[in-house]
Amino acid sequence: MANPGPGNSITLRLEAPANFTATSELAAAAARTGAVVTGLDVVESHHSGMVVDLTCNTTGTDHADDVKTSLDALDGVVVRKVSDRTFLMHLGGKLEVVSREPIRNRDDLSRAYTPGVARVCMAIAENPADARALTVKRNTIAVVTDGSAVLGLGNIGPAAALPVMEGKAALFKQFADVDAWPVCLDTQDTEEIISIVKAIAPVYGGVNLEDIAAPRCFEIEARLRDELDIPVFHDDQHGTAIVTLAALTNALRVVDKKIEDVRIVVSGVGAAGNAIVQLLQAQGARNIIACGSTGAIHTGETYADPHRQELAKTTNPDGFSGSLAEAVVGSDVFIGVSAPDILTGDDIAAMADNAIVFAMANPVPEVDPVVASRTAAVVATGRSDFPNQINNVLAFPGVFRGLLDAGVSDIAAPMLVAAAQAIADRVEPDELNASYIIPSVFDPLVSVEVAEAIVKAAESHKE
Amino acid sequence: MANPGPGNSITLRLEAPANFTATSELAAAAARTGAVVTGLDVVESHHSGMVVDLTCNTTGTDHADDVKTSLDALDGVVVRKVSDRTFLMHLGGKLEVVSREPIRNRDDLSRAYTPGVARVCMAIAENPADARALTVKRNTIAVVTDGSAVLGLGNIGPAAALPVMEGKAALFKQFADVDAWPVCLDTQDTEEIISIVKAIAPVYGGVNLEDIAAPRCFEIEARLRDELDIPVFHDDQHGTAIVTLAALTNALRVVDKKIEDVRIVVSGVGAAGNAIVQLLQAQGARNIIACGSTGAIHTGETYADPHRQELAKTTNPDGFSGSLAEAVVGSDVFIGVSAPDILTGDDIAAMADNAIVFAMANPVPEVDPVVASRTAAVVATGRSDFPNQINNVLAFPGVFRGLLDAGVSDIAAPMLVAAAQAIADRVEPDELNASYIIPSVFDPLVSVEVAEAIVKAAESHKE
Repeated sequence: MANPGPGNSITLRLEAPANFTATSELAAAAARTGAVVTGLDVVESHHSGMVVDLTCNTTGTDHADDVKTSLDALDGVVVRKVSDRTFLMHLGGKLEVVSREPIRNRDDLSRAYTPGVARVCMAIAENPADARALTVKRNTIAVVTDGSAVLGLGNIGPAAALPVMEGKAALFKQFADVDAWPVCLDTQDTEEIISIVKAIAPVYGGVNLEDIAAPRCFEIEARLRDELDIPVFHDDQHGTAIVTLAALTNALRVVDKKIEDVRIVVSGVGAAGNAIVQLLQAQGARNIIACGSTGAIHTGETYADPHRQELAKTTNPDGFSGSLAEAVVGSDVFIGVSAPDILTGDDIAAMADNAIVFAMANPVPEVDPVVASRTAAVVATGRSDFPNQINNVLAFPGVFRGLLDAGVSDIAAPMLVAAAQAIADRVEPDELNASYIIPSVFDPLVSVEVAEAIVKAAESHKE
Repeated sequence: MANPGPGNSITLRLEAPANFTATSELAAAAARTGAVVTGLDVVESHHSGMVVDLTCNTTGTDHADDVKTSLDALDGVVVRKVSDRTFLMHLGGKLEVVSREPIRNRDDLSRAYTPGVARVCMAIAENPADARALTVKRNTIAVVTDGSAVLGLGNIGPAAALPVMEGKAALFKQFADVDAWPVCLDTQDTEEIISIVKAIAPVYGGVNLEDIAAPRCFEIEARLRDELDIPVFHDDQHGTAIVTLAALTNALRVVDKKIEDVRIVVSGVGAAGNAIVQLLQAQGARNIIACGSTGAIHTGETYADPHRQELAKTTNPDGFSGSLAEAVVGSDVFIGVSAPDILTGDDIAAMADNAIVFAMANPVPEVDPVVASRTAAVVATGRSDFPNQINNVLAFPGVFRGLLDAGVSDIAAPMLVAAAQAIADRVEPDELNASYIIPSVFDPLVSVEVAEAIVKAAESHKE
């Protein structure tokens, strides 16, 4: 199922004979295994032979081994070394802590450190609000995880979660000049996590919770929002919800339907599913059916999980009961944040005309997007190798840029809605079509406009 | 007492008449208040007048006001604005978190973040030791404080302590390319601090404890050393001890005495004093008298504080009892890490011939160094405006560089001694004299050689 991708890119250093067809033969051999050759550099060239770096995308470790074997089998070719470019990029970690001002001489030292720093300390001791101006708190957020629900990998713990948090911090800096620091906690106790985040908060202007398992994540977020005076944002919930709403806004424009009128099936009632339901409702959605692993959630049943119990009350106004496949029959919108391959092409064909399908399970979507697109009008996934990638990177950098700029202490739903609209509006009317409902993650204006939308929403929230 | 210094540097933006003596008159007016003019820039010049930025060192806020008043009083001069250069440097904080690799396109994103990062996570989940190679843990330490004993400012709390921790992190990066991150904890409970530092440890390759009050700091350090598998170093103890031993080594060379033979009085039995005593003993010192606020600590008394009780057992072999001033009579070395102005010139004159005086209380030393130098052979302080500044910056960057490079999990006394010797040996025999017993903090080789010494000591420690 997996396609060769840059996440599985390798570079092979090869010795090859010195004849002019050698490089094309190398590339052809790699391509025959299914690898996508992305680079080929002659590093050394002699009369007797040459040294070549061949870089290609593979589908994973086994495929990388195949490539090596195929190249080794060529006449006169020796594979000296195989480098995994993803691992190379991670060597030594992905972040650096640097000084914003160089400390070159005694004068610099006297200001950045003792004795000058003492006056800055006393200014903050006398007026704690000055910490926002005079320290990293101004521009820094904590990316907090307990490693319990990392990507699709599950409970791999805080050390193994660190590369994701570093990557996230790098994205915060790259896309919105937010300084973000990974906080990977070696505890999965709700109360302990809450008290630790409160204790470390003096350094931070915001908290991004990340990859913390449901339902623990709800309690942690709610309590920290109550007990801290800096904004707390669980990206797996609200980041996903913002980008989903942005995509849905544009998808509805494409099919010319209104959010108030459509029936929406949300598959998955974890962190993302709950937040999506709430945000769609905040934007006017009235007919949402949320489905867990046992089918539609409705008032006819009682649920041990208080979030399912709450969903039963606030969604599914017609009291529909039945399986997910039954729920999607005649529905206008399917939003999946759940599990791979749980719907078929026939299920999608049974939806209403001009159906919208967001199959966001990663790496394998709820329904094959190619199959879904045979009958649905708009199809989106979480993957970068299909059109319409619903990617949180579109939201979180600009959201925190805006929160820090506005000096916000609490996040209100209108800010999230405003962020979603800003993302949706980055797609110009003349660009909008079924394969382009969401801007590129590399559009540099997305985070700028999300931040502006947050600041504006924060101002009207204050009034 | 305070001299004008760069920690109290201000820049005044002035309007002045356009005549060629104006700038010298401005400088002269500032100088008459006692300010030291360090810069004068004409920013704009017109027929009718000019705009000048005058930068000068002052002794503090009141003096800065005097400078402003004096300049305003000059004929035709208007002070537009006074900027405090120390505060300017702190605006927005002193640190940035940057990505070591740019994320310019989809390929970069696929490696630094999803989907590629998942393989790096799984590698660490399968082999936790890989975190040292593949994450920031490789090169990053936590600078941890509870804000309870910040500089000489006392218990000012975690937010007000942050500028110091940021400065420290900047120095770690500048002098030894160690990434250091401030952890300012909003708790002063020993057990809570221990459990929080343990919980955040997955991200870090070492812990630098900073400005935590005694005796709590001892317990926290001891427990963390036991319970963590990364090195834990309390700079106020061991950093100070290392640099003190380095300075003492060279001072003894100057006066041609041996550490085994000298009588040493240590004033101050907090974090620094205890660590100094232990490190001097590790290096061979046999006759140390430790003095607290009530005089010499000796076996004839019982102390509630277990550290004083321990000092009574391990120091003062002759059972001397009496005041600090009595203890220094006939002693070879005085080391003060205590309080301002507690000894007089007469006290120092009563020491043995070729006495060594390290008066390190900050900003006001235990004895006026100018007065002490009338009779003592070598005088050192913690201040940058006298010769022989005993400054921890000489130790901590190189120490952690070495600990991280060696992959050390425990710090042993021989490593600290080796670090001290490396610092001492940076002063070449032909440079060594009573006014130059310690290298400059800007000597770029100090941290390199300290790190090498630590690595070498760690290797023999393993064997």
